[in-house]
Amino acid sequence: MFRPQIKVLDCTVRDGGLINNWQFSDDFVRKVFLALARSGVDYMEIGYKSSEKYFSRKDNGAWKFCTEEDLKRIIGDTGAKMKLSAMADIGRIDQEDIPLKKDSVLDMIRVACYVKEVDKGIRLAHQCIDKGYEATINLMAVSKVLERDLDEALDDLSKSQVETVYIVDSFGAMYSEQIHFLAKKYREALPGKELGIHAHNNQQLAFANTIEAIIAGANRIDATLYGMGRGAGNCPLELLLSFLKNPKFDIRPIFEVIQDLFIPLKTEVEWGYHIPYMITGVLNEHPRSGMKAMAEKNLPDLRKFYEGLLDDEPLE
Amino acid sequence: MFRPQIKVLDCTVRDGGLINNWQFSDDFVRKVFLALARSGVDYMEIGYKSSEKYFSRKDNGAWKFCTEEDLKRIIGDTGAKMKLSAMADIGRIDQEDIPLKKDSVLDMIRVACYVKEVDKGIRLAHQCIDKGYEATINLMAVSKVLERDLDEALDDLSKSQVETVYIVDSFGAMYSEQIHFLAKKYREALPGKELGIHAHNNQQLAFANTIEAIIAGANRIDATLYGMGRGAGNCPLELLLSFLKNPKFDIRPIFEVIQDLFIPLKTEVEWGYHIPYMITGVLNEHPRSGMKAMAEKNLPDLRKFYEGLLDDEPLE
Repeated sequence: MFRPQIKVLDCTVRDGGLINNWQFSDDFVRKVFLALARSGVDYMEIGYKSSEKYFSRKDNGAWKFCTEEDLKRIIGDTGAKMKLSAMADIGRIDQEDIPLKKDSVLDMIRVACYVKEVDKGIRLAHQCIDKGYEATINLMAVSKVLERDLDEALDDLSKSQVETVYIVDSFGAMYSEQIHFLAKKYREALPGKELGIHAHNNQQLAFANTIEAIIAGANRIDATLYGMGRGAGNCPLELLLSFLKNPKFDIRPIFEVIQDLFIPLKTEVEWGYHIPYMITGVLNEHPRSGMKAMAEKNLPDLRKFYEGLLDDEPLE
Repeated sequence: MFRPQIKVLDCTVRDGGLINNWQFSDDFVRKVFLALARSGVDYMEIGYKSSEKYFSRKDNGAWKFCTEEDLKRIIGDTGAKMKLSAMADIGRIDQEDIPLKKDSVLDMIRVACYVKEVDKGIRLAHQCIDKGYEATINLMAVSKVLERDLDEALDDLSKSQVETVYIVDSFGAMYSEQIHFLAKKYREALPGKELGIHAHNNQQLAFANTIEAIIAGANRIDATLYGMGRGAGNCPLELLLSFLKNPKFDIRPIFEVIQDLFIPLKTEVEWGYHIPYMITGVLNEHPRSGMKAMAEKNLPDLRKFYEGLLDDEPLE
């Protein structure tokens, strides 16, 4: 698949940091940055933009905050041309905590929001656009959203200045048919805007669903190194770059950084396909109960875990 | 997806045995058998039918041979209605080593062959049919086969009495588009026959490609418990059964046996997604070099491993 419009965003440090509270050393993040820049990836999402009014540096590493000082420690004078992105969650950042683009090394702010708070999301995205950034809206957990509510949110987005809207399969619950259905719906509702995809791997479908979204027209594609990300993780960048035939990409720096950093890290920090995550994905549930199960010293009884989430009591 | 014609075959012991030379205890195989029978799976492929003229019991467990004596130790008087299958490889079994169906607890022989030996495969399958078995042909490694050669093999198969033909992605090299292309080709070339799918997980696409084949009309579906299988493994049965909506399936015994046997086994025996297998899959190569890399004490340099397989020297 070679479509020159396709842009790849690596969110390893941002999404992977959800596992270890962003406790990555500067050296680690710098190596990731350099490997991604060498591989031709378009954007690196280096963390969250969060307010220190709401979160402390005692509990969270630098990539929960992404101040200019944090960022400059990594970027330095590498001269890399890759763009930088940070994610902002509604209610976890105030607009005055985001500097003007001219005072920042960040190029893009991605606003993550639920469908019910899309108007807050659009407001924050507009504020970012006014400050000079590219801005996107990542509509989370849409596998749980009633179609009427989703249509209303897409209608609001269609009237906004936000240029890119992502399908986010937060629960790793979707099959290719749902991706196809949503991609068609988003494209029809959002003429002139770019479509993005952010997939989770609970059912080993993150890469496949990403391909499906690409076939259905998505041009803004999320992935992470070795699939690192909360719970079952994300679409692995190494698989995505192998699939995309764009000659601007070079996968070899990706193999190097996976071997140097991520294969060792996976023996210390847990992510990937495990039955508790598979069960929350299959049942279209938030992965939090799966993460709780995986964090226990002994894995709980899987049959009972499944039955407990089935929620199949009669309720007329 | 509920299509009553869909039949699921679990080949955990047969394909998983390629990792450990079928060194499974009788107790292990019996627990797998009972869990599969309870879950409603249609067929269990319990091993290979191979000749003791060519292979020794010293080097291989019972499930390399599947004599009636071996099988009866497992089945006993359980009264389970699940059908039993064994695989036969061309050149590793002589037809006189296969008893008449009336003297066997096996229901089906699946003949695995390369496209270049399809006529030997058809002959062996016909011999099995004449003895009273169901028989299938599993055309291996078709991702390497020139279309003209494949068309010729399909033409031979169309004239045979073999009722089921499988697409086998031996190298885990295919994307959904290739699955779709082959499924269409097989169905058009083989009117009146059933189509099957056997996928490998080198690119985390085994389950997704299985879904794609089902959408494209495949009714005979291979999977393994927890994805166990040679190299990157296979389509996980637990994911497949969750996708299929046929009420005859019950996933709960599957969770039990995965927890009791396969999560512990995975700490001893290695299978699943690893970069060396990903690389052979992406490059459409036999997984043997990946297995060699994984068997080394220290993982070889992945960038060099990739470059070594690229085989991109000019060769006019």
